[in-house]
Amino acid sequence: MSRDKPVTETPLLLALDFGGTKHAAALIGQGETQWRDSRRKLSPAEPTAQTDWEIMRSLAHELLQGAKPNAIGVSFGGPVDAKTGTVRLSHHVPGWENVPLQQWLETEFGAPARVDNDANVAALGEHRFGAGQGCESLLYITISTGVGGGWILNGQPWSGAEGMAGEIGHIVVDPDGPICLCGKRGCVERLASGPYIAQAAREQLAAQPHRGQILRSLVNQNLDAITAQVVSEATAQGDDLAWEVLEVAAWGLGIGIGNVANLMNPQRFILGGGVTKSGAQWWETVRQTAQTTALPEVHFEIVPAALGDEAPLWGAGALASDRLQA
Amino acid sequence: MSRDKPVTETPLLLALDFGGTKHAAALIGQGETQWRDSRRKLSPAEPTAQTDWEIMRSLAHELLQGAKPNAIGVSFGGPVDAKTGTVRLSHHVPGWENVPLQQWLETEFGAPARVDNDANVAALGEHRFGAGQGCESLLYITISTGVGGGWILNGQPWSGAEGMAGEIGHIVVDPDGPICLCGKRGCVERLASGPYIAQAAREQLAAQPHRGQILRSLVNQNLDAITAQVVSEATAQGDDLAWEVLEVAAWGLGIGIGNVANLMNPQRFILGGGVTKSGAQWWETVRQTAQTTALPEVHFEIVPAALGDEAPLWGAGALASDRLQA
Repeated sequence: MSRDKPVTETPLLLALDFGGTKHAAALIGQGETQWRDSRRKLSPAEPTAQTDWEIMRSLAHELLQGAKPNAIGVSFGGPVDAKTGTVRLSHHVPGWENVPLQQWLETEFGAPARVDNDANVAALGEHRFGAGQGCESLLYITISTGVGGGWILNGQPWSGAEGMAGEIGHIVVDPDGPICLCGKRGCVERLASGPYIAQAAREQLAAQPHRGQILRSLVNQNLDAITAQVVSEATAQGDDLAWEVLEVAAWGLGIGIGNVANLMNPQRFILGGGVTKSGAQWWETVRQTAQTTALPEVHFEIVPAALGDEAPLWGAGALASDRLQA
Repeated sequence: MSRDKPVTETPLLLALDFGGTKHAAALIGQGETQWRDSRRKLSPAEPTAQTDWEIMRSLAHELLQGAKPNAIGVSFGGPVDAKTGTVRLSHHVPGWENVPLQQWLETEFGAPARVDNDANVAALGEHRFGAGQGCESLLYITISTGVGGGWILNGQPWSGAEGMAGEIGHIVVDPDGPICLCGKRGCVERLASGPYIAQAAREQLAAQPHRGQILRSLVNQNLDAITAQVVSEATAQGDDLAWEVLEVAAWGLGIGIGNVANLMNPQRFILGGGVTKSGAQWWETVRQTAQTTALPEVHFEIVPAALGDEAPLWGAGALASDRLQA
């Protein structure tokens, strides 16, 4: 029996997504378009950097079963110094301050790694595998608990001099508007994010006791139970007050997008996150406001994300692939 | 007598700046940092594309004296399709609609040419020869009759999918603000540009007859003679009303810059144009507003342009150099 001839094996890539409340890991071969295997796990009730790390380590080792990846790509839900792969902090989980995550991973798995924040990585995921394929310049925007974004310019991620680019959530669109957690007034996030849509609905219902009957009945009169999703549902059922609230949110996002279009002239905006499920009126108002805010010579598309919650994991796969080819 | 040995001559670059009211042409050797020769000429009272072209042709031929340039770079004061070197139009001079300027120049001078709009080219000029040297990401902003901008990202110009990037003048910073020529309310240009500063001063003087005595006396009570420069002068002499007007303008620009910092996280903003001569209070307000609008993690410098009105001509030289190496 002759020995097997040496074959060139497809390089194996490990993709990791550290979310605020859930984690995911997956294996993919270089150039492939389907996961070979993947695992997901929720965080415990009071997560720390240590519990995050232990969950991710065990997910990855389960997947690898002793194999060694050729490269690792990581999406992290918080600010990252992508040049060194150092996590700056997590807004949701304590203990992540200045953690050299890239180095930890390279030591643990013996393969080169790249780490970036979730918005940048999700942008890369949509660009390579989702709604941004074939598009050389795009801003991916996630609108959910917060509003964040990631850039692709000239087909490559652009994360800025300090890795902070893409913060469309904290551009001011209404200096006389309500105060945001960040301390400024009328940020896109303050107008357009899910929790603030819910808050605005509660305020309007309190101020206008005879309106919003559909919205009220959807939460059985318990205003604390209102979420952005409920506001959308009430809008779909014809509740005027609910739509007025949602319209302001869509308007704020539309102004932000139109401003960005004038400033950067990208081909496409890709919108993901829970709030994008707010229905046709929301999309129409976002698109219309953005178009009237942009100069007439500036053209762009506003399209829904294709990969949903998986965009960061797909982007992590792309990051690993790029790391291998670097 | 022996024949001269062949020598490798430094490639000769022709730089052209088509302004709204004045034109400039210069010769420089590849890699050099001083003009070998340059010419400037004002437009006639009622310029057309034809008079612009004839002036530039004759300036260039005077400079060249029969020599052939190795490459040509052009700054044009209006929107340009840089990929094809086609001028879309001039806002100041009729007849420039869809002119294939790059092709005209290549035919006229027998050398490869590149054409881009003045803000993009000025950004390149400041990057290679001025206040942006050694800086990999910057936005150059000119604040004069209008407010425009040009990007350098990763050390290269970024002009957007359609060549329209950099329009910081038409991002909305105050949706309840005054109406701009572009039809929107509260654009940066509407708040921060020279003519609108003058207009705001006239309006305030009309509304507050007992204030602004210094400003009034500087124009001998003739309010039509007020310019942004006069408003600055009155501010320097301690006129409170003049400063209130200027402060709003600086505030609008500062909000715009802070928003851009959050969105793109560039290292530096370079400010040029007449309004930047408005004094220390203006600069301080721009810087302070920009910094408080930006997220605390986002850092940047705001510095004066170094090349003044010559930035587009220097950028045209850089464009010619790049064309040669392409």
